[in-house]
Amino acid sequence: MTNDQDIVVIGCGAGGGTAAQFARKTDRKSTITIFEKGKYPQYSKCGLPYVLSGEISNAINLIEFSEEWFKKANIDLLTETTVEKIDIKNKLIYAKRANKIIEKSFNKLIICTGAKPFIPSIENINIEGIYTVRSIDDVNNISEYSKNVKNATIIGAGLIGLEIADNLQKKGLKITIIEALPNILSNNLDEDMIKHVFEKIPDDIIVYTDHIVEKVKDKENKITKVIIKDKKTNEKKPIDTDILIIAAGTKPDTMIARSIGCKTGTTGGILVNDKSETTVKDIYAVGDCTEYVDFVTKKPLRVGLGSIVVRQAIAAGINAAGGNYRLPQGFLNTCTSELFNIEIASVGPSSNKIDKEFSVITTRFSGSSIPEYFPGGKPIAIKILVDEYTGMIMGAQAVGEKAAKRINTFACAILARFDVDTLRKLETAYAPPIAPTLDAETLVCDMAFMKIARKKR
Amino acid sequence: MTNDQDIVVIGCGAGGGTAAQFARKTDRKSTITIFEKGKYPQYSKCGLPYVLSGEISNAINLIEFSEEWFKKANIDLLTETTVEKIDIKNKLIYAKRANKIIEKSFNKLIICTGAKPFIPSIENINIEGIYTVRSIDDVNNISEYSKNVKNATIIGAGLIGLEIADNLQKKGLKITIIEALPNILSNNLDEDMIKHVFEKIPDDIIVYTDHIVEKVKDKENKITKVIIKDKKTNEKKPIDTDILIIAAGTKPDTMIARSIGCKTGTTGGILVNDKSETTVKDIYAVGDCTEYVDFVTKKPLRVGLGSIVVRQAIAAGINAAGGNYRLPQGFLNTCTSELFNIEIASVGPSSNKIDKEFSVITTRFSGSSIPEYFPGGKPIAIKILVDEYTGMIMGAQAVGEKAAKRINTFACAILARFDVDTLRKLETAYAPPIAPTLDAETLVCDMAFMKIARKKR
Repeated sequence: MTNDQDIVVIGCGAGGGTAAQFARKTDRKSTITIFEKGKYPQYSKCGLPYVLSGEISNAINLIEFSEEWFKKANIDLLTETTVEKIDIKNKLIYAKRANKIIEKSFNKLIICTGAKPFIPSIENINIEGIYTVRSIDDVNNISEYSKNVKNATIIGAGLIGLEIADNLQKKGLKITIIEALPNILSNNLDEDMIKHVFEKIPDDIIVYTDHIVEKVKDKENKITKVIIKDKKTNEKKPIDTDILIIAAGTKPDTMIARSIGCKTGTTGGILVNDKSETTVKDIYAVGDCTEYVDFVTKKPLRVGLGSIVVRQAIAAGINAAGGNYRLPQGFLNTCTSELFNIEIASVGPSSNKIDKEFSVITTRFSGSSIPEYFPGGKPIAIKILVDEYTGMIMGAQAVGEKAAKRINTFACAILARFDVDTLRKLETAYAPPIAPTLDAETLVCDMAFMKIARKKR
Repeated sequence: MTNDQDIVVIGCGAGGGTAAQFARKTDRKSTITIFEKGKYPQYSKCGLPYVLSGEISNAINLIEFSEEWFKKANIDLLTETTVEKIDIKNKLIYAKRANKIIEKSFNKLIICTGAKPFIPSIENINIEGIYTVRSIDDVNNISEYSKNVKNATIIGAGLIGLEIADNLQKKGLKITIIEALPNILSNNLDEDMIKHVFEKIPDDIIVYTDHIVEKVKDKENKITKVIIKDKKTNEKKPIDTDILIIAAGTKPDTMIARSIGCKTGTTGGILVNDKSETTVKDIYAVGDCTEYVDFVTKKPLRVGLGSIVVRQAIAAGINAAGGNYRLPQGFLNTCTSELFNIEIASVGPSSNKIDKEFSVITTRFSGSSIPEYFPGGKPIAIKILVDEYTGMIMGAQAVGEKAAKRINTFACAILARFDVDTLRKLETAYAPPIAPTLDAETLVCDMAFMKIARKKR
């Protein structure tokens, strides 16, 4: 490195905070400033649902790096500071803090503006008792409001919607979930895998798929009911609702980036490359506001996972500070959650995200986590998606015992561009209390290999 | 395939049974005969220690494939049948069953004669109360003999010795372990990782490392004491012993193979290649009686893990029946166990097995299984061995939460010949109740990468 940098980071979520941290690790002398519009330093957004059940006792515990931490790292963190304007020609940024305008120069800028919750068009939505779950304040407000209520309705049965449902149910609320798509979790799992999760949903959680919320009703400006509509039959139905939580996805917040000429992609996110660079020189972007590439399909991929955000941030931070760090040529979207006491995980696209140009063979295996003769085995189901012509593994989904760590092995195999023949021969760790000699990962690959071999005959 | 084969398998352990099974899957018409000298069909040897504690309630439960199963698969299983002689020129095998000699022709032979326990030279060893743990009869005999005894001594603190110790202690016996080497588990883990296991050993299990058993004492032909000797000081000490169990390793049983000209290697095992072929045409060998190659060091590797045996057996069975199945160019020795309620796992050679020709950098990370802010995290320690010049991962060791499944990912990375830079960029599955954004696997690779980068400066 020849020159120390003057780095500004917009946003102190997992993306901004991590980028600043890795910029500092790369160069001790660069000036690093973070503008964060909220009042908290870096905290875990993914932990928010678990505050609702009390499993995480206080939302403040989610703060992973305190203001003191940033101070000690010689990173200038300004919270409650909103970026107003960027003069890209002169590399000046104007931000507002306590009604004062701050002018700050930079030579490297890292944009981590995240995403805003998508709010479906619903009549009468500006009443009390309607929330999204994107911040510490959100969950504190929900916890306060839901203290004396009984019926919660959740819009959205994706990972986050279901995490919220699971946690609110643990707290004793009666839950109804409204999902516009024909199935829950359809971003993550194939239908035949989803059923393993569906059957774990407690009886007192009611799920309406293929339904939308048309309007909300109130009494003295507080929500009392939602009116849902069956998308197929147009039939309408009222659902008693004391609190409504919207988890219907997000939209990338790209306003600042577009104002300085950064291009966005087809998903709406800021286009970034393997160095987390945008299309504008010296400007990096990281996280939920960005679009990169799917490693397997090479199609545009909107970033939405904490694990990806952090990896992009490492690249942005190191590169902005003068280092050289390249990400793989696409993201795997390795993903996990625990829902209704069952672990789910996936990597690569699900079947509905793969274009017709690929000829995909799917194979599913269900078995026990340990040999049959050993007591205490737990169910594990694994499904893999394999390219028929090359035998290459394109995706994997797991539901059950140690699903996440199993999926990590598939992620490694996809990154290595392994075919099923290679992966079925991998020696997996075996011991009677832990795993069978041929683990579910091996058997599902072996089955896929046989299926392809039969097709070729 | 043009001709159906006449296949004979010697031994119906995991190796022989699996080989026969895959031969049958490959060709429905081949004749398949198994000669097994013991009285049981295929059972899990690795499950034997867990019969001692009662965790597996009856040794008979270890039988994975019954005589009826083999019958249905049209595999001719002859138990209590000992192979006496092979006429390799005329491809005839002579076996003894109930004092009758059976003559059987073959055109493919699969040798799965396994290994015999190594018995150290000890004075007065032919008395009652001394056992090894290699068969269903062994554990039944131990269970019977140990009913009214108090003090058990175990020779050997490898995986199996410790599994036996753990299980006998659960049954209430007072345990002393005698190990000739300076440490426990020295075949599997490096010293700094072993300490995580050592500290879990209950206080009432006494371990003497660097000690050998010199003689045993008896009363009325039943063992009462062992006399141990400190290898460094030569000091001797009596240990009250009502039952002595020898778990001091094994010797490959190669007698039959050598009688027909199969070459053995430097470890004493029958030399086999990636198709499980011996040096003699049409003769295959599988399992504890064989020697293959270490994938990482390319040095000879004596086979001793159930997971490897089964994979060799798949190759032998398929190839003997006319198929074509090749194993990877060496074994990874992926290995796991649960000892004293902690999971350990490893892949690749430990530091003491790597020659000076390699320049190895080791890196260790200890942390929590989940983010700090989430309750219920459990400790995990991972150590990796990396080639300094290429950055390639040569081995990994893990102790703690989900150690085995983590090690599977390293196994996949080693098979893919990944360097630490590639593996540290792998997207691992993240969710607060399951794993941090940067899991122990990622962090230990990142640390190793930095260590190498600093060295190169």
